[in-house]
Amino acid sequence: MNDSVGIVSAQCATFDTPLQFRSGAILPRYELVYETYGTLNADKTNAVLICHALSGHHHVAGRHSDDPKSAGWWDNMIGPGKPIDTDKFFVIGLNNLGGCHGSTGPSSTNPETGKPYGASFPMVTVEDWVKSQARLADMFGIRQFAAVVGGSLGGMQALQWSLSYPERLRHALVIAAAPRLTAENIAFNDVARNAILTDPDFHGGNFYEHGVVPSRGLRLARMLGHITYLSDDAMADKFGRSLRSGKLGYNYDIEFEIESYLRYQGDKFAKSFDANTYLLMTKALDYFDPSREYDDDLNKAFAPAQANFLVVSFTTDWRFAPERSRAIVKALLHNRRNVSYAEISSTHGHDSFLMQHEHYHDVMRAYMARVEASL
Amino acid sequence: MNDSVGIVSAQCATFDTPLQFRSGAILPRYELVYETYGTLNADKTNAVLICHALSGHHHVAGRHSDDPKSAGWWDNMIGPGKPIDTDKFFVIGLNNLGGCHGSTGPSSTNPETGKPYGASFPMVTVEDWVKSQARLADMFGIRQFAAVVGGSLGGMQALQWSLSYPERLRHALVIAAAPRLTAENIAFNDVARNAILTDPDFHGGNFYEHGVVPSRGLRLARMLGHITYLSDDAMADKFGRSLRSGKLGYNYDIEFEIESYLRYQGDKFAKSFDANTYLLMTKALDYFDPSREYDDDLNKAFAPAQANFLVVSFTTDWRFAPERSRAIVKALLHNRRNVSYAEISSTHGHDSFLMQHEHYHDVMRAYMARVEASL
Repeated sequence: MNDSVGIVSAQCATFDTPLQFRSGAILPRYELVYETYGTLNADKTNAVLICHALSGHHHVAGRHSDDPKSAGWWDNMIGPGKPIDTDKFFVIGLNNLGGCHGSTGPSSTNPETGKPYGASFPMVTVEDWVKSQARLADMFGIRQFAAVVGGSLGGMQALQWSLSYPERLRHALVIAAAPRLTAENIAFNDVARNAILTDPDFHGGNFYEHGVVPSRGLRLARMLGHITYLSDDAMADKFGRSLRSGKLGYNYDIEFEIESYLRYQGDKFAKSFDANTYLLMTKALDYFDPSREYDDDLNKAFAPAQANFLVVSFTTDWRFAPERSRAIVKALLHNRRNVSYAEISSTHGHDSFLMQHEHYHDVMRAYMARVEASL
Repeated sequence: MNDSVGIVSAQCATFDTPLQFRSGAILPRYELVYETYGTLNADKTNAVLICHALSGHHHVAGRHSDDPKSAGWWDNMIGPGKPIDTDKFFVIGLNNLGGCHGSTGPSSTNPETGKPYGASFPMVTVEDWVKSQARLADMFGIRQFAAVVGGSLGGMQALQWSLSYPERLRHALVIAAAPRLTAENIAFNDVARNAILTDPDFHGGNFYEHGVVPSRGLRLARMLGHITYLSDDAMADKFGRSLRSGKLGYNYDIEFEIESYLRYQGDKFAKSFDANTYLLMTKALDYFDPSREYDDDLNKAFAPAQANFLVVSFTTDWRFAPERSRAIVKALLHNRRNVSYAEISSTHGHDSFLMQHEHYHDVMRAYMARVEASL
C-alpha cells in the first residue's frame, strides 16, 4: 500500500454565482463534490485536474475509510510513485455537474421547488463542465494547472480546457478520445437513450416523484455500452462461445457466458446510476465538436490551444479508434503545438485507458516526469 | 420491366408429418408460405432455393398485384437476365418456420389451444429450417437443387444445406455470412433480445392475448440492428454530424439526422414485425455452429460437404467481416472442395449483400452462368 494515497474523503464546494450553460439555461447555485490527493505547493503550480468519463466520478484514487474495497477508478494511475505522482503533484478529481455522485445533478433537490430537478436540469456540454471546473480551480487559487488529464469523455474535457482557457494549463493529456463523435457513435448513444426515454418508469425524467427507476432502460443502455467499450478480440478471448451450463438450453435464459457478463454489468449499473445523468452524459458526448463553429475545420478549431499535449490511443479501441486520436494530433501539429503521441498495443478496446498496462503506464509516467511542478 | 418476374403471388404448403426440432420439441403440423419464379424443368434439375435473413421472407422477387411498390427484397438479383436468371432457373423463396409472414410461427394459431403459439413455439435452429426446406423440395419432387443461395443468416442456411444434405445441392452460394457468431455478435443479439424480453408489453411472449405489442423493445432491437448492418463509413457519408433542423435543440428530440433515420427504421419495423419471430431469428443465429460437435474444428465440421461453393464477403461488413468468410473458405479448401471466393469492395457494410452493386452482381452472374440447369 506504499504507492496508495491511502484513506481519502470527499469534499463539497458550493458556488453561488449563477452558471450559464451553452443551451442558455442558468443554474443559480450548485455544488461540486471533489477529492484531492497530494499537497498544493505554495505557488499553487503543481495542480493536476482529472476529468472523468461517462460513468466516472470524483473518487479517483485511494480508499474510503468505511470500505476497504472502494479503490478509486484510476487508483492504478495516481499515487506516490505512480505515473501521476502525488509526491509531486496536487491532484483533484471531481464529480461533474449533472452527475449522480454528489455534485448537483438531476437527482438533486431543486431549492426553488423542493423536488428533484429531474427533466428540468439543464442539458450540459463539455464546455459547461470546463467552465464549472475553472471555478473550482479559482476556489483553490489555482491560476494554471500543471496538467489536465482525462480518458474518453474525460479526454474531451482536457482538450476543451486547452481551447476555453489556453493559459490556464501547461499540459493536456488526451487519452482514448476523439475530436468529435461520428454518426455511428451518436447512433449507439441514441439507442441507449431511447432505451431509457421509452421505459415506462422514466416518466419524462421525473421518475423520482413516482418512486420508481427506469432500470430496464438503464440496464439495456449499459449492456450496449459495454459492447462498445470492449474489443471483439477481448470478448472472444474472455468469453468466446462458452456456454454457462455446458449445454444449450433452447430458451431465453442465459446460455452463453457473454450474456451472463453483460446482464450482470447491466443489472449492477441500473441499481447505482441515475438515468437522467446517463442521458446528459451521452448528450455531452454527442454535442462535443470544437470544429462546429469553424466550418468543421479542426485546424481552425484548435488554433487557440497553447498547452503541450500527450495524446494516447489504443489499437483495439473501435469506439474511438487510433485514427480519431491521430486527427487530433494532426490538427494540433498544424497549429505548431508541442504534441507527443502514443498508440498503445492493447487487446482491451476502449476500456484500455482504465487498465494496468505496462507500456501505457510507462508512457504516462515518462510524460508526467517532464511536467514541471513549478514555473 | 423486361427483367422483372412480374406479378407474383404467394402459395402455401401444408405438412402433416410431425417435425422434430434440435431442441427436442415437436410440431405436429405446419405450413410454409412460398413464391416461385421461372419454370421447373421436366427433370426438376434447375431449382434454386433462396434462404432469407433475419427480417426476410418468401417475397423475394417481382411484385404483388395489389401493390405496384411491393418489389421483392432481392428483386435486383432475380429475374429474366438477372444474375439469378429465371429464364434458366426455377427459383423458390419461402418464409422460414417461426416467421411472421404466413408460415407457421409464434403468431399463428396453435390448433391444440385455439390461441397463438406465443412463447410455446419451439426454438428453431438453422438445421431445423433446412430440414423443413428439404420437405418443401420433396413436395416439388426436387431431389437436388442446382443451387442454394443466401446472404447473412441465409448464407448460414446455404452452408447447412451442404452439411445436412450433401447430395441434394450442386452449388452453395454463401454471402456475407460467418461460420459461427463471435461473442460480440451474440452480445448485440442479447441486448436486442433483452429489449424485447423486458418490455412490459411482452407478457412472457403471450402478448397477443393482451391485445398489445412490445413495440418499444422491438423498436430498440431494430435500431441497434441497423447500426450493425451499416458501416461507420457509410453512416459518415450519409449522415455525418448533420443536424435535422440546422441547429442544436438541447433536448431529447431528434437532433442529428442519424437519429431521425434510426428512429424511423425502428418505428416502421415495430409496426410490422413479430417480436417472438425476432427473438427466434436471433437465437438461430447464436446457435448456428457446425463445429460445436467437432471440437470447434471447422475443418472436421465441413468434411461432409460435397457441393461447389461461392463465398462472398464485403470489405466494410464489420458484423460478418471478410475474415469470417475466409475462415469458411479455408475449411472448405482443407476438405478439397471447389470454392470460389470474392471479397467485394463496398462502402455499405453488411447490407451490401442486398444492394445493387456492379462488381458484386457481375460475380454472382458469372458464377450462376456456370451452374448447370441440367445434369
